[in-house]
Amino acid sequence: MALIVQKYGGTSVGDIERIKNVAVRVKRGLDQGHRMVVVLSAMAGVTNSLIALAQQMSPDPDPRELDVLLTTGEQQSVALFCMAARDLGIPARSLLGFQAAILTDRVFGRARINYIETRRILELLDKGRLVVVAGFQGVDEDTGDITTLGRGGSDTTAVALAAALRADVCEIYTDVEGVFTTDPNVEPKARKLKQVAYEEMLEMASLGAKVLDIRSVALAAKFGVKVHVRSTFSDREGTMVVPEAHIDEKLMVSGVAYTKNEARIKVLDVPDQPGVASRLFAPISQAGIVVDVIIQNTSADGHTDLTFTVPRTDFKRALELVGPVAAEIGAGQVEGDTNIAKVSIIGIGMRNHAGVAAKMFSTLARENINIQTINTSEIKISCIIDEKYTELAVRALHEAFGLAEEVEPSREDLA
Amino acid sequence: MALIVQKYGGTSVGDIERIKNVAVRVKRGLDQGHRMVVVLSAMAGVTNSLIALAQQMSPDPDPRELDVLLTTGEQQSVALFCMAARDLGIPARSLLGFQAAILTDRVFGRARINYIETRRILELLDKGRLVVVAGFQGVDEDTGDITTLGRGGSDTTAVALAAALRADVCEIYTDVEGVFTTDPNVEPKARKLKQVAYEEMLEMASLGAKVLDIRSVALAAKFGVKVHVRSTFSDREGTMVVPEAHIDEKLMVSGVAYTKNEARIKVLDVPDQPGVASRLFAPISQAGIVVDVIIQNTSADGHTDLTFTVPRTDFKRALELVGPVAAEIGAGQVEGDTNIAKVSIIGIGMRNHAGVAAKMFSTLARENINIQTINTSEIKISCIIDEKYTELAVRALHEAFGLAEEVEPSREDLA
Repeated sequence: MALIVQKYGGTSVGDIERIKNVAVRVKRGLDQGHRMVVVLSAMAGVTNSLIALAQQMSPDPDPRELDVLLTTGEQQSVALFCMAARDLGIPARSLLGFQAAILTDRVFGRARINYIETRRILELLDKGRLVVVAGFQGVDEDTGDITTLGRGGSDTTAVALAAALRADVCEIYTDVEGVFTTDPNVEPKARKLKQVAYEEMLEMASLGAKVLDIRSVALAAKFGVKVHVRSTFSDREGTMVVPEAHIDEKLMVSGVAYTKNEARIKVLDVPDQPGVASRLFAPISQAGIVVDVIIQNTSADGHTDLTFTVPRTDFKRALELVGPVAAEIGAGQVEGDTNIAKVSIIGIGMRNHAGVAAKMFSTLARENINIQTINTSEIKISCIIDEKYTELAVRALHEAFGLAEEVEPSREDLA
Repeated sequence: MALIVQKYGGTSVGDIERIKNVAVRVKRGLDQGHRMVVVLSAMAGVTNSLIALAQQMSPDPDPRELDVLLTTGEQQSVALFCMAARDLGIPARSLLGFQAAILTDRVFGRARINYIETRRILELLDKGRLVVVAGFQGVDEDTGDITTLGRGGSDTTAVALAAALRADVCEIYTDVEGVFTTDPNVEPKARKLKQVAYEEMLEMASLGAKVLDIRSVALAAKFGVKVHVRSTFSDREGTMVVPEAHIDEKLMVSGVAYTKNEARIKVLDVPDQPGVASRLFAPISQAGIVVDVIIQNTSADGHTDLTFTVPRTDFKRALELVGPVAAEIGAGQVEGDTNIAKVSIIGIGMRNHAGVAAKMFSTLARENINIQTINTSEIKISCIIDEKYTELAVRALHEAFGLAEEVEPSREDLA
């Protein structure tokens, strides 16, 4: 008899029939004697419709009220689900953010959970109830105002509940079978991973893999919550996201990720003086634009080129901000490029293995793909390349590091 | 500087443009220096769509969860309205049932308000905020579970808030200009009443006039809340619902109401013995069916006919329940008739004036309308007639009691 938190995403509860199917699946767990907490997203499309409605109402909707509006999506999901569950004889009880006492800070639209007061949930579980919690929402600890946790926030709700309740496992049900070695839409040979370490999952999420929200992974890592990513539409085991120590099969590289969401800005002939970089980046950071990679070439005759990437949605604004400053500090031209992609390989095995980077570079070189910038951490290597080579690069790297299903993966005994 | 509670119904907030228009109207009140609380219904059609969704999910949706679902309608209204209000520079703040501390009993679907803890609303008003409360919803005082007040519940929310806050007036904005002497769709000469007494309004609401929810009128009467029923779509004064003592012009009859929502059941040859009526009506009351008029003819040779009316939606079920009991107690045939209407005249002036009933009967007789049953109280007379004569009867009575705009209304000096 375990305590299990299950989270079902928007596609999993996308219509009446699917919600009924989720209830059937949940019943199976209850019939096995488990105590269960279910977290639900809004039905697929609902959140986007509500955002569209808000945008019709106001060019810049009040953030507090936007959260009041958006949380109705999950509220509808949990109510409908509980109706279906009760028809199956399950004593289901829905709880909204304020009822589940998911206490957050006051940053509307991307609040952080400070604390979950689990008393009520535990009482309900002790009475044999199925507790069904609306994902994505909480309340400001001080005022009781409704907050939301940002896109993908239901994953965070589930992991936070699993941590607070000391659940045995947090199952994230989605429309894919688990975490894959790369995007199966790009590389059909992509293999489902049985296990992935928190650190790897964090890098994968931040580098473009969409299966789990990054904040939920960080939370799982912090509290050691075992996360099982699996499909709502099949009974197969998915991927366990676990501490590194629990990984049975340590791959040198466990995944290839890519993202096309970035753009590159290059400032030529920047005077190589102290304080120049800070003057360039100050207005960008003040505008809330997140700079990813920054590359500065070695100086030649007191000048250098400075290259950095920003989210593609912020590209125009960033260019507008940098232009005047570049002129002020006596730099040269500012160039921009949106046709770039970031391709990354991720693996905790890299830590103890030299030659991974060299293999990545040679693989790309063999395909005549030019690497524009490189960025590395202990367990990942990212290369910015021309966007049109993205799929080619992903497939070549997937092949080179032996990740395909057909071949035996290259193993490293790192013990 | 007054404290005003305004309630806007579903048609008034029916779409984005209308919500913006309501914000403009509210701003006018604020600009005059009033402190204001706005109560909103769900956008027209939303509640019905949600009910349809619930019925798709379950043949008999769990009442607790149905309330969780339905309250999202008003939640969306208040959020969208506050966005519009803020764009006009109004410091609006939405409050849901749990935030406004509208504490109810636990009867899901038709909860009663026990208490409103007004501290938070008063604090916000003191800070110069416009407080925008979601109508129709509250929370169970003991558990914090979400409850709804039943159809028309937003009127009750508004009146209860006005009572708790000791507001100067509760303005109910709707899609009609006020309370009319009768339904203007039936009688184009119907006249808008400047004032109507609580008792009259109660009778009108229970006898078929739809302008105000009956529970809100009872609440207004109990706490002496002045209610101003008026149109969202015009600036004209509407109708004041006030204590009888405040009525300037006491009409003998102030309104003609009708309803086609009832059906009649007649049990023939009922043995005239003690306990027979109770045996007949016990199963009906146990089934939660509300019996309106009961008429028993004088006994002839130890038998009598028993006629009663029930809501038309409960007619079939009532017939099925009465049939077997009628057989058991040795009564004769059970007849049913759904083609009936109840036409009523209402007026506090009746209390002190004889001959009103006689005038009603003679008016109907003149039109050759047969009266099937009669039911009276101190301030109303209701007649059940053949449904097809409804409009004819309404117009004839409206004319006979001088309610039309063209004629000077018949006055009674009752001082």
